Amino acid sequence: MKHHTSFAQRTATTMHFASDNWAGAHPAIADNLARRNGGFVQANGGSDFDRAVEQTFRDIFETDLSVHYVATGTAANALALSAVARPGGIILCHSEAHIRVDECGAPEFFGAGTRLESIDGELGRFDATALEAAIGHVKDGGLNAGQVQAVSVTQLTEAGTAYDLDAIGAIADVTRHHGLPLHMDGARFANALVALGCTPAQMSWKAGVDILSFGATKNGCWCADAVLVFNPDHGRQMDYLCKRSGHMASKARFVSAQFEAYFADGLWLEMAAHANRMGARVAGIVGARNRFRLAWQPQGNEVFAIGPQEAVDGLAAKGVQFSPWQPPRAERPLVGAGEAMIRLVASFASTDADLEALESALAG
Amino acid sequence: MKHHTSFAQRTATTMHFASDNWAGAHPAIADNLARRNGGFVQANGGSDFDRAVEQTFRDIFETDLSVHYVATGTAANALALSAVARPGGIILCHSEAHIRVDECGAPEFFGAGTRLESIDGELGRFDATALEAAIGHVKDGGLNAGQVQAVSVTQLTEAGTAYDLDAIGAIADVTRHHGLPLHMDGARFANALVALGCTPAQMSWKAGVDILSFGATKNGCWCADAVLVFNPDHGRQMDYLCKRSGHMASKARFVSAQFEAYFADGLWLEMAAHANRMGARVAGIVGARNRFRLAWQPQGNEVFAIGPQEAVDGLAAKGVQFSPWQPPRAERPLVGAGEAMIRLVASFASTDADLEALESALAG
Amino acid sequence: MKHHTSFAQRTATTMHFASDNWAGAHPAIADNLARRNGGFVQANGGSDFDRAVEQTFRDIFETDLSVHYVATGTAANALALSAVARPGGIILCHSEAHIRVDECGAPEFFGAGTRLESIDGELGRFDATALEAAIGHVKDGGLNAGQVQAVSVTQLTEAGTAYDLDAIGAIADVTRHHGLPLHMDGARFANALVALGCTPAQMSWKAGVDILSFGATKNGCWCADAVLVFNPDHGRQMDYLCKRSGHMASKARFVSAQFEAYFADGLWLEMAAHANRMGARVAGIVGARNRFRLAWQPQGNEVFAIGPQEAVDGLAAKGVQFSPWQPPRAERPLVGAGEAMIRLVASFASTDADLEALESALAG
Amino acid sequence: MKHHTSFAQRTATTMHFASDNWAGAHPAIADNLARRNGGFVQANGGSDFDRAVEQTFRDIFETDLSVHYVATGTAANALALSAVARPGGIILCHSEAHIRVDECGAPEFFGAGTRLESIDGELGRFDATALEAAIGHVKDGGLNAGQVQAVSVTQLTEAGTAYDLDAIGAIADVTRHHGLPLHMDGARFANALVALGCTPAQMSWKAGVDILSFGATKNGCWCADAVLVFNPDHGRQMDYLCKRSGHMASKARFVSAQFEAYFADGLWLEMAAHANRMGARVAGIVGARNRFRLAWQPQGNEVFAIGPQEAVDGLAAKGVQFSPWQPPRAERPLVGAGEAMIRLVASFASTDADLEALESALAG
Repeated sequence: MKHHTSFAQRTATTMHFASDNWAGAHPAIADNLARRNGGFVQANGGSDFDRAVEQTFRDIFETDLSVHYVATGTAANALALSAVARPGGIILCHSEAHIRVDECGAPEFFGAGTRLESIDGELGRFDATALEAAIGHVKDGGLNAGQVQAVSVTQLTEAGTAYDLDAIGAIADVTRHHGLPLHMDGARFANALVALGCTPAQMSWKAGVDILSFGATKNGCWCADAVLVFNPDHGRQMDYLCKRSGHMASKARFVSAQFEAYFADGLWLEMAAHANRMGARVAGIVGARNRFRLAWQPQGNEVFAIGPQEAVDGLAAKGVQFSPWQPPRAERPLVGAGEAMIRLVASFASTDADLEALESALAG
Repeated sequence: MKHHTSFAQRTATTMHFASDNWAGAHPAIADNLARRNGGFVQANGGSDFDRAVEQTFRDIFETDLSVHYVATGTAANALALSAVARPGGIILCHSEAHIRVDECGAPEFFGAGTRLESIDGELGRFDATALEAAIGHVKDGGLNAGQVQAVSVTQLTEAGTAYDLDAIGAIADVTRHHGLPLHMDGARFANALVALGCTPAQMSWKAGVDILSFGATKNGCWCADAVLVFNPDHGRQMDYLCKRSGHMASKARFVSAQFEAYFADGLWLEMAAHANRMGARVAGIVGARNRFRLAWQPQGNEVFAIGPQEAVDGLAAKGVQFSPWQPPRAERPLVGAGEAMIRLVASFASTDADLEALESALAG
Repeated sequence: MKHHTSFAQRTATTMHFASDNWAGAHPAIADNLARRNGGFVQANGGSDFDRAVEQTFRDIFETDLSVHYVATGTAANALALSAVARPGGIILCHSEAHIRVDECGAPEFFGAGTRLESIDGELGRFDATALEAAIGHVKDGGLNAGQVQAVSVTQLTEAGTAYDLDAIGAIADVTRHHGLPLHMDGARFANALVALGCTPAQMSWKAGVDILSFGATKNGCWCADAVLVFNPDHGRQMDYLCKRSGHMASKARFVSAQFEAYFADGLWLEMAAHANRMGARVAGIVGARNRFRLAWQPQGNEVFAIGPQEAVDGLAAKGVQFSPWQPPRAERPLVGAGEAMIRLVASFASTDADLEALESALAG
Repeated sequence: MKHHTSFAQRTATTMHFASDNWAGAHPAIADNLARRNGGFVQANGGSDFDRAVEQTFRDIFETDLSVHYVATGTAANALALSAVARPGGIILCHSEAHIRVDECGAPEFFGAGTRLESIDGELGRFDATALEAAIGHVKDGGLNAGQVQAVSVTQLTEAGTAYDLDAIGAIADVTRHHGLPLHMDGARFANALVALGCTPAQMSWKAGVDILSFGATKNGCWCADAVLVFNPDHGRQMDYLCKRSGHMASKARFVSAQFEAYFADGLWLEMAAHANRMGARVAGIVGARNRFRLAWQPQGNEVFAIGPQEAVDGLAAKGVQFSPWQPPRAERPLVGAGEAMIRLVASFASTDADLEALESALAG
């Protein structure tokens, strides 16, 4: 859980680390929107163009799959998880998972009363052992306790870390053993992919993921989120689920056009790699200051740091845009009295000037 | 109720009358997206730019109001109506209303079980007398029958007609008398506005409308739908309703940018006027053919025609894109044996070439 | 749809025809409750006694089935139908069906937004042809229209008539053809069974019914309603559905005790036969008066009559308890100007004295 | 969270401590059901008799209030809490609260996606300080985090302890300060009342409780649970909420008859006092054995004990009926390696013979 109000100073300085959705769209994506604007195209996602982009997803993930565009990352998660909803259903996820604490009850609403139960773990990750215990706990409770309907991992996690392939595989072994679907919240899928240096297939269905929330909005699109369903059993009701929640865009080609440019020539990986590199540089700058220290080593484009409250306030006063961050339960001991945790996020649009300005602000 | 499969022939001809959401965005809107793309802007709709566009809505509607962007027209309707949801709640609407028969149960879902009860009436409109009777019918049923939570009118109606200001006012007298909110589904608000030649205020809150689904997607945007709340009591939970259903775009400026251009220099009215004029020309062309006749006089950009099934098939074979249309209950007697009803829709993007090609196809 | 306020005069007269749930429990059922009161029995329906009563259901229905106790007939219907819920789901039923107009939106709520679409038909019944058309209508509407999730018949119907076995069979042929579950609202199952003179199996699963709301409350119990599931696929989530809606009685033996006595020595059929006979006598008495006529021939324990409004008022003034009844749409032409329709219901508890008093009141 | 499978041995011994809902109804209550069985009474809770019993509730609670009968304690809680539902709504309760871990998602379902957030605390109780922190945590999270809709306390708690009046008052100060409704799950209200030796008014509305789930089923009724609403604002939709969830009994007098006898001559307090006394004796017996020790001092009729797993198994083998109990998070350190926690529950129906048999079993 965290503070969501950012210190947004309206100055001419360029120190934008509040979130990766403060940037606009990458120019190549904006251009493609314009290019795909002309003429008449069948609405509601049924056009040849939409189908061609869907095929691109299949090529990139090296498997058959269905693609369902939705309006936001929250919608992607909530709809993906509602595809496997059951009465008395429970989704097991990390205690700090975005779906549990930052989506205003969307997964609960879409599942008509789904409960999200926490699994604790350091650095935003839970492990297979903790998952096994959590499943056992629900089963011991019998009918009263409800039933586990899915397990969800977040990649990058809420701590900006990544599950490595072995960790995902071990979790998937547990879900398979119990016949449970495994969902991945991939709001920062590309950042994690680049961090691990593996293929999209390796980090998803080959590792045992059944349904993926694939986010591109934070990584350079305007508005491009999709649910990818690898197991066709889970996808049968997806179109109805999307339509009845107002998540079937009539001019769907506007989303297809973003994804077309996103995937073309590896732009998505390039943007994520840039964001991660800039994140690493932010970490280097912040971690080197004697008033601040890194909370832990970042793996993607999010940097968490700890410093004296007055230093935090000073940073904000200088126009650095970041988010005050309430430390996760597992990491609370890291933060001493009079100290505060902050989050800084780099994006595809972060520039050298941003970093230099940040360095100056910290030096000042 | 109607068929939704359009005869989409992939030919070089330009006879695109399937729906107004087969067009892309108006170039001025596409350009503004590019113009607003640079730099960093606060996410989730909290930026100065978002607030400025919200102010434009207030200026255009000449009143205080709150604006809530959502992903689709279906979402706008469902969220607007859920803002006044009650247990056992009933929404009274026309038997052919889009919310009742074309939104895959979205208003029912968002209201956690809302029922949509039909009111019959010719040309897609119900009147104040029929509404009064429908309200009385529910009240007579007592607790078992549930309770009316809102009344909804569609403007343009599903028959492409418009409620005039007196008709809306008479309906609003009834809703006010019973303390019920009045919702307007304005998916084609601009087309109706131009048809009536009145102001946005006159056709909405001044006529007694409390909540408005304001659609711009069909009229030249990519993806721009909003709920406008005139009565602040109905708006208090809107942000939560939008967020928990995944309808709060993170990069909201992308919607603001569309609306900015949409309203600038009266572009929206110009586009609607063009679509209506083109619709009138379609009506003139189709109505003049001896094999076809108009089902009724169109008021906006939608034209409904009746002809022999073989003539309908012939039109499709020639590459004219339209929708076969199942005649509304009230109008079924209009369609004779062996005949069929079709719908043709003009848009901001309809051209003289489209009309000429249509004329040729009909003449052939 | 009907009025629900009954003219309840507090007099010494015994003319109780308001509804069959104004009576208490049959003495044999009340006695059995007392008999089964002692000692300790496993809660939540898991006791040997509960299992024995479940076996009685299987014996009576001559098949394997699962039994799920619920608190009311409304709960039985809503839970039964929610067992086959789907997003955008539609239940097809008669336009006057109790589930559609008298359950305050319960099926809609339990299905998280299920829509109930009307099929018209005389005497409370729809036929296979009309059903086929209704299914086709939804399918023609595509994704926007949603999807049919179940078909429901009411037995006795809301008009007090019964579907005969052929009619149910013809409807079941349609549902089977479309792969749809067939639900029967058997709030007055026993009255219909006695009227048709067939077996429980013949009127349910042998005729093609998949899920049955089996009501005993109106027929002499205190509070005994159950969902019977014939198709095990539909029953897998029933326990969870019941528990999460507060419909799993902890002291379930209290329901079992009622059913035990209900079925013993054919008490249930005896009570229903009595109620039907008394209904027929009510019909004879009312139909023979020149100021009243029967709306149609009753088949069970409910009698619908039409008379001048002043005669209706006079009847109420004399202390006869009945319900004013709004004529179903299909039967409205039956009721002339200045006339009103009423409903009188006989029950297991109706006596000769009730009938004689009614006769006197009508004669007066 | 706890195990729900009880060791139910079918022996002639009388050692029934599995749960207080394994008993039937008190004879005085069973008799009153029979007494109130005759004649015709208006259905759905509208009779003079129902109103008279409602008045008894008002007399006992010394205030105006509305009474809503429901089928189970789970329904009482879920419906009470749904009366104050909001989108993105959060109910704050103890981490072991029945509503959170033992109702199969009922509060979540009735609230269309309500989330139940845990507050930790020893002995089943949270305090005002922890509540204030939990509220602050949600508020800090902004829109993403949702909004607190209610606070719920359980009385007796899941640990069989009671909140004293000061503790409730301190919690109510917090809820009042934040404008939040305070709900009490009173499934064992009478046991707590007797334990504290105060009046019903003191333990509910005078202490700041707005809505009360008033359970009588565990304390000697067959099936008698009600929602009591002290603040009329919270009660306006209750009838609709009950009806649309199938929780409005048609023959409501059957519930009224139970409550009539329950309250007559203080029977309810007598039964609770007996159960508590028997609980204290169970505690004395179990706590005095060297192989078992009390987990903590019981305040009502529930006793929690810890002993070696083999001693627990031995107890079960001797036919003692109890529930294995998973220790609450806060109390886990109490249970050593090779040990297990169990729960024994006394009821109005517990006898000296039960206690003697238990003593022998422990001695053996």
